[in-house]
Amino acid sequence: MEPKSTFLRACLRLPVERTPIWLMRQAGRYLPEYRDIRSEAGDFLNLCYNPKLATEVTLQPLRRFPLDAAILFSDILVIPQAMGMSLKFSVGEGPIFSNPIRTIKDIEELEVPNPEEKLAPVLEIVTQLRKILGETPLIGFSGSPWTLATYMVEGGSSKKFHQIKAMMYNNPMLLNQILDILVISVAKYLNAQIRHGAQAVQIFDTWGGVLAPEQFREFSLKPVAEIIKRLDRIGPDKVRVPVIFFAKGCGYMLEEMAEIGCDVLGLDWTTNLAKAHQRVGHRVALQGNLDPSVLYASPEVIQREVFELLNSYPSPTGHIFNLGHGLEPDMDPERVSILVEAVHQASSLKGKSIK
Amino acid sequence: MEPKSTFLRACLRLPVERTPIWLMRQAGRYLPEYRDIRSEAGDFLNLCYNPKLATEVTLQPLRRFPLDAAILFSDILVIPQAMGMSLKFSVGEGPIFSNPIRTIKDIEELEVPNPEEKLAPVLEIVTQLRKILGETPLIGFSGSPWTLATYMVEGGSSKKFHQIKAMMYNNPMLLNQILDILVISVAKYLNAQIRHGAQAVQIFDTWGGVLAPEQFREFSLKPVAEIIKRLDRIGPDKVRVPVIFFAKGCGYMLEEMAEIGCDVLGLDWTTNLAKAHQRVGHRVALQGNLDPSVLYASPEVIQREVFELLNSYPSPTGHIFNLGHGLEPDMDPERVSILVEAVHQASSLKGKSIK
Repeated sequence: MEPKSTFLRACLRLPVERTPIWLMRQAGRYLPEYRDIRSEAGDFLNLCYNPKLATEVTLQPLRRFPLDAAILFSDILVIPQAMGMSLKFSVGEGPIFSNPIRTIKDIEELEVPNPEEKLAPVLEIVTQLRKILGETPLIGFSGSPWTLATYMVEGGSSKKFHQIKAMMYNNPMLLNQILDILVISVAKYLNAQIRHGAQAVQIFDTWGGVLAPEQFREFSLKPVAEIIKRLDRIGPDKVRVPVIFFAKGCGYMLEEMAEIGCDVLGLDWTTNLAKAHQRVGHRVALQGNLDPSVLYASPEVIQREVFELLNSYPSPTGHIFNLGHGLEPDMDPERVSILVEAVHQASSLKGKSIK
Repeated sequence: MEPKSTFLRACLRLPVERTPIWLMRQAGRYLPEYRDIRSEAGDFLNLCYNPKLATEVTLQPLRRFPLDAAILFSDILVIPQAMGMSLKFSVGEGPIFSNPIRTIKDIEELEVPNPEEKLAPVLEIVTQLRKILGETPLIGFSGSPWTLATYMVEGGSSKKFHQIKAMMYNNPMLLNQILDILVISVAKYLNAQIRHGAQAVQIFDTWGGVLAPEQFREFSLKPVAEIIKRLDRIGPDKVRVPVIFFAKGCGYMLEEMAEIGCDVLGLDWTTNLAKAHQRVGHRVALQGNLDPSVLYASPEVIQREVFELLNSYPSPTGHIFNLGHGLEPDMDPERVSILVEAVHQASSLKGKSIK
């Protein structure tokens, strides 16, 4: 069945009236109402696992702005935690895994979690959101195996990726074993999100850009392709569930990324949207890719940049407007509002000029 | 006149017996003898401005490894300091400019420094090094105007580049004024380095990769092209002085970067060397681009990766071996030694197989 929403239609390259928009990290610290709930929840993970609060936080940006999709509020690291790793978020330091994965023994202790048990609160949030959202589509998500593995092997955030790269070069079999378990775990998790009501899913490969091309192909792209093969692509409502793949800093690989079975490629802002479309043709839709820093500029500049980006995309469908990366805590919600309005207005005009 | 050294010859795409190698940040914290001198010098800037110590630090890696070039030990931020900005290096926080450039008034206070006065100690280091180095060529360097401007406008290191990007979008004229002064200052500084004995110069654009393509072209590439136009390309010894341009994260722009007048493009490790050569042909030589993390791997893996990289480059000259980014403090000098030996051995064999 064909979906009705502009967002899902654009993902599947079906005709649309105008360009849909959602924003990576649209639920987050730039919103004062988020900061209120965040301090009420205390620990960040408490917020992720609290159905009432996480549902509310997901909906906050949609109350402010006429966005075309909601994205589940959660964290990519709930999967390694469900696999049995001990996870903490410490203030100022970010996520910390106290027992990083370095040996075959560490890997043997990881389990493939049953999401209905281990991630039940997240799935409950998905169920609730789907009920409340009505016509607005809900995006589920996961980190890519490579990106999740960086945290699991490094023991937290990293700049240099010393541990995982040493493993990749010295003992690629070990890394592949971690990635294999992640492929199965992430596929099950995304399928559970789809069963519970996610109408599209995005796979974030935040750290694919630190890899050389051969390694990116082998350790990031291949596992993502294996996940996509395992996904139930028709949701409970009989509508096709688009898969969006976003790999930051990997624009040079677009042609190959377009072949892994996803419906949409997310672009960061260092890739030219029009040229990206030339390179991938109609094989995939494109999502992105305004430089997030444009939100530090004046309303006039925001409108101009939106207009130029929309106009540079040459096809009447297959573009989902987004930033090239997530919203930042110091961004002004007023500017976000101007951005969303500008996309809606300018793309409606563009639609008319095409007809 | 044609240079004799393998490094300079490869930069100018003249026939060579084997592939030359030097390493970004080859003088630095991974060497215990560097750490000794660093603690003797106290403040990091003291070290940069101390002819005896900076000369010694430049030479240290050449005593350990048969590298094909030396690179002046200094910091890119000596230029903004010479322009009148107050600079400090605080432990753990990196460089801090206490009065960042935000207004036209701030810009008016910047001066174009006469390097023979304001940077006399650095030029003395160049002079000394050239005397000591003999046949080994000396590389001078500078940051690119865009990269220098990020520190000057942000007031130090940055992750998000909020201030300078806001300026770029809201008031590009202001940013261009800063870049204009930097173009003149950097060109004078590099010409002074050449006069004093630098036989090649590298322009580092560490932060070009945070820009969208249009902005990279306008605010990074254009000022660099203007610097290159102003350089004395024949050194005091009548030999051509190659210009190397290294822009991290900008591999998508190779074709345009090859047109700005440089002799060599430095590549980070996310660009495939063979494909890069296909794209730029014989217009420029290529420098790079082993993933620095290969140095965390075993000797066998280092040798294999070196061999593969050398073999992937299809031309008998025009390749200068380097890492795709600088050496890290936690790298093992023993592994660096294995790397340098592997490049010398494997590329000599390669040279023979070509003949």
